[in-house]
Amino acid sequence: MTDGVREVPDWLTRLRDCGALALRRGDEDVSYAQLYSRASALAALLLARGVRPGDRVAVLARDARVFAAALHALRFARAVMVPVNVRLTPGEIAWQMDRADVRFAVCDASHKALWDATGRANPVLALSGDEWRDGAGVPDGAAGVLEPTQARALEQSMERVDMADVQSIVFTSGTTGHPKGARITYANHVFGAAASAFRLGVLPGDRWLTPLPLFHVGGQAVLMRSVIYGSAAVIHDAFDPAVVNHAIDHDGISLVSVVPNMLARMLRERGDRPYPAALRCVLLGGGAAPAPLVDECLRRGVPIAATYGLTEANSQVTTLAPADARRKAGSSGRPLAFSEVRIAGPEGTPAPPLAEGEIMVRGLTVADGYDRNAEGTAAAFRDGWLFTGDIGYLDAEGFLFVLDRRTDLIVSGGENVYPAEVEAALLAHPDVLEAGVVGVPDEQYGQAPLAVVRLREGCAVELDLAAFCRARLAAYKAPRHVRVAHGPLPRNAAGKLMRQELRGLL
Amino acid sequence: MTDGVREVPDWLTRLRDCGALALRRGDEDVSYAQLYSRASALAALLLARGVRPGDRVAVLARDARVFAAALHALRFARAVMVPVNVRLTPGEIAWQMDRADVRFAVCDASHKALWDATGRANPVLALSGDEWRDGAGVPDGAAGVLEPTQARALEQSMERVDMADVQSIVFTSGTTGHPKGARITYANHVFGAAASAFRLGVLPGDRWLTPLPLFHVGGQAVLMRSVIYGSAAVIHDAFDPAVVNHAIDHDGISLVSVVPNMLARMLRERGDRPYPAALRCVLLGGGAAPAPLVDECLRRGVPIAATYGLTEANSQVTTLAPADARRKAGSSGRPLAFSEVRIAGPEGTPAPPLAEGEIMVRGLTVADGYDRNAEGTAAAFRDGWLFTGDIGYLDAEGFLFVLDRRTDLIVSGGENVYPAEVEAALLAHPDVLEAGVVGVPDEQYGQAPLAVVRLREGCAVELDLAAFCRARLAAYKAPRHVRVAHGPLPRNAAGKLMRQELRGLL
Repeated sequence: MTDGVREVPDWLTRLRDCGALALRRGDEDVSYAQLYSRASALAALLLARGVRPGDRVAVLARDARVFAAALHALRFARAVMVPVNVRLTPGEIAWQMDRADVRFAVCDASHKALWDATGRANPVLALSGDEWRDGAGVPDGAAGVLEPTQARALEQSMERVDMADVQSIVFTSGTTGHPKGARITYANHVFGAAASAFRLGVLPGDRWLTPLPLFHVGGQAVLMRSVIYGSAAVIHDAFDPAVVNHAIDHDGISLVSVVPNMLARMLRERGDRPYPAALRCVLLGGGAAPAPLVDECLRRGVPIAATYGLTEANSQVTTLAPADARRKAGSSGRPLAFSEVRIAGPEGTPAPPLAEGEIMVRGLTVADGYDRNAEGTAAAFRDGWLFTGDIGYLDAEGFLFVLDRRTDLIVSGGENVYPAEVEAALLAHPDVLEAGVVGVPDEQYGQAPLAVVRLREGCAVELDLAAFCRARLAAYKAPRHVRVAHGPLPRNAAGKLMRQELRGLL
Repeated sequence: MTDGVREVPDWLTRLRDCGALALRRGDEDVSYAQLYSRASALAALLLARGVRPGDRVAVLARDARVFAAALHALRFARAVMVPVNVRLTPGEIAWQMDRADVRFAVCDASHKALWDATGRANPVLALSGDEWRDGAGVPDGAAGVLEPTQARALEQSMERVDMADVQSIVFTSGTTGHPKGARITYANHVFGAAASAFRLGVLPGDRWLTPLPLFHVGGQAVLMRSVIYGSAAVIHDAFDPAVVNHAIDHDGISLVSVVPNMLARMLRERGDRPYPAALRCVLLGGGAAPAPLVDECLRRGVPIAATYGLTEANSQVTTLAPADARRKAGSSGRPLAFSEVRIAGPEGTPAPPLAEGEIMVRGLTVADGYDRNAEGTAAAFRDGWLFTGDIGYLDAEGFLFVLDRRTDLIVSGGENVYPAEVEAALLAHPDVLEAGVVGVPDEQYGQAPLAVVRLREGCAVELDLAAFCRARLAAYKAPRHVRVAHGPLPRNAAGKLMRQELRGLL
């Protein structure tokens, strides 16, 4: 493939005259024609305000109308989106903005204050999805302001996408606790859309619902795939099991992306009533599905597709087709069409079937590397493979079984919590000598972080360490439970904390 | 995208343990595991017999079992397939084999004699699909014969596909009457499979039926897409309307690829009985669908998808989704996801909407060029665009309306007949002074070639020119009707034959 064939026609521009549903949010519908009109006006506005091709632009929005318009506007302007997890603290966000050298921000109405609290001096554009609903357009700052060359460049880039362009930088924490920005390209999205279609199916009338936040790759993928397919995305700003169940019944939903804990709550809310046949697939990401949940779905005929994915691979790597759910219960399925999975064996050789080891991934959906982080990139991306840090095995037929998400990763309500990051926050407290964090089962969130701490002698046991963490970290990262250890925490010979042994102290 | 990401996992090797249906031919089913086992044995056998990576290997087969095994075996061996139109004469085939520098041939049992008649000295392997059905494997000529380095290379290439590799050279005639071999790459197939899925939909249980020959891109695409999707292909060796209708009712067919004339015969055979809802799409290629046929389909609820495609674009370029069939009757639809269409305007500018002109195509399914034909390539592939020679226009919404297939192209029973080629055959007769060929409506084949000839004075009018042509050309190219003109044929000032004016002489 030469340079020329890296380019493909822009999916949204193709649909600029199309009245079909692009996006449903609550009871509000946005057609492709409307989305195009907003995104193109917004692209001109961003350029007029000084955004340049290649610039990094933060997007803080749970409002899907704003998020989707910004996503396409940044594509048109050839700027790079940095989607911000709006559950983070202003301090955490500021750190990521520094790291990614963000030059501009786009917020929905609810998150302008959060951006202001980061103390960043960058220009910011706050957009109200409600004003759009009420008939107002994107503020017109562009008329007559773009240089002719700029206007021509915009016109050209609206027609065609360079698949090698970086679409977004999506931050993910690692075992070290320092967030790293995965560089996701348009090629990652195109091949991800095709591979997902081959595994889950796609139909022109599909409607893909997710209550997951759009700032993670799983939510963003629903938006991107829908526009690439020309089908519709139904996005809920927050998760409510009754609202999702109602939408499945009344909005003609064909696919749903949720995490196991959400599905469990949906099933409880629904009682015995079966789901309609139009619901083809419930894509289950964000951590292994507990066996009782899988059993219940099989019994009730819910078409679940367990998936293993990660930010660095732009979501899905393997997916278990609903047809295999019973035969391969507990598996996350086989790699998608353009992905490969290997288990690291001794001395760099692939491990044989059934042998456990680190999960390695390569393929056309894998990120280009970590942004401005040569060290992190070199550590995780080796010889063309992404070393995930997750542990699992492949069976003789090539189905992946995930045993442990990254080293000690905790998945709480669909969010990744890295123990090292929480431990670092705890250790910032002057009375904490040692800290270890592990995940424990949680009724509402699937898992929740539990901290085991050793305190300075004579310190109050009732110390509110959770509140201390909440001031520094996103609320979902703060320990839900704190236990005090009465001696040193378990460490190996090298002094490394043995987190799994902390459980013995509980 | 760097060199590394040109590689994708091999689709068939992925399915080597899979018992699901790969291919149905008549009442015989071939699973993916069986297809893999045959293709891998055949690849080893071909290498053992001296086929080398990059070698061109002719495949003469209407037996889908043999065609599919050969297609994958050549992929594994990294050889290039030259699918042969078995309706051609031995002389026509020999010309193409010379042109493509073919080194080896694979035939099914029915076509060994045809190959022998070409007089080619190349080694040939005749395979019997019936013997496979009866339990015999591919002849074992490979055991112990492959060099260790060869065996290792085969093992590696069976794992991964280099998308830049040429998969096949598919001959297509042109306005000049000299067949040209379009170089189709694996990338063309991968992007074609994805784009077709986005437009027509794909479901894991799909079964795609075609009675079209596999040696054309339309038939070959059904095989390639099915294996890339992991779904099933149902291939009929010949077209019989009753057999296709029966298969749709009893084989769970979701997609059918036919040409308009076939569909018309299917509808007649079927009477008023509706097609089952499982039939999602009838893909209608090979020439414009006549308006009465489209009307009848709309009236009867047959989900037709008119498509415009050509060999050089590896089949589909535009396709009208069934949902648009009524609103845009007569159109061939909008370009697929990775394809662009433009109408050539004056002085190289794109023509505005509704203006007629030559149809230009570019995108990721377009061939690499013509094989060993720099002149033909330079004429047709210009500035990144394929100039198709077909005439049409785009409406304001970007839907393509095809007015004339290439200059004077005749589509007869799904086969392209180029007047220039038939005229050249006629002019080889010593009594023929001038010859012109045009298509006329034909009950059975949609169109049929009609020749207008001017004979040497005093010659017999009853001269059997059709028989003379059949000795030199595939039977379907021979004129079905011959008319004698009593004066010079109409020509323009430059002496170029005005074929459309021939109709005035009839």
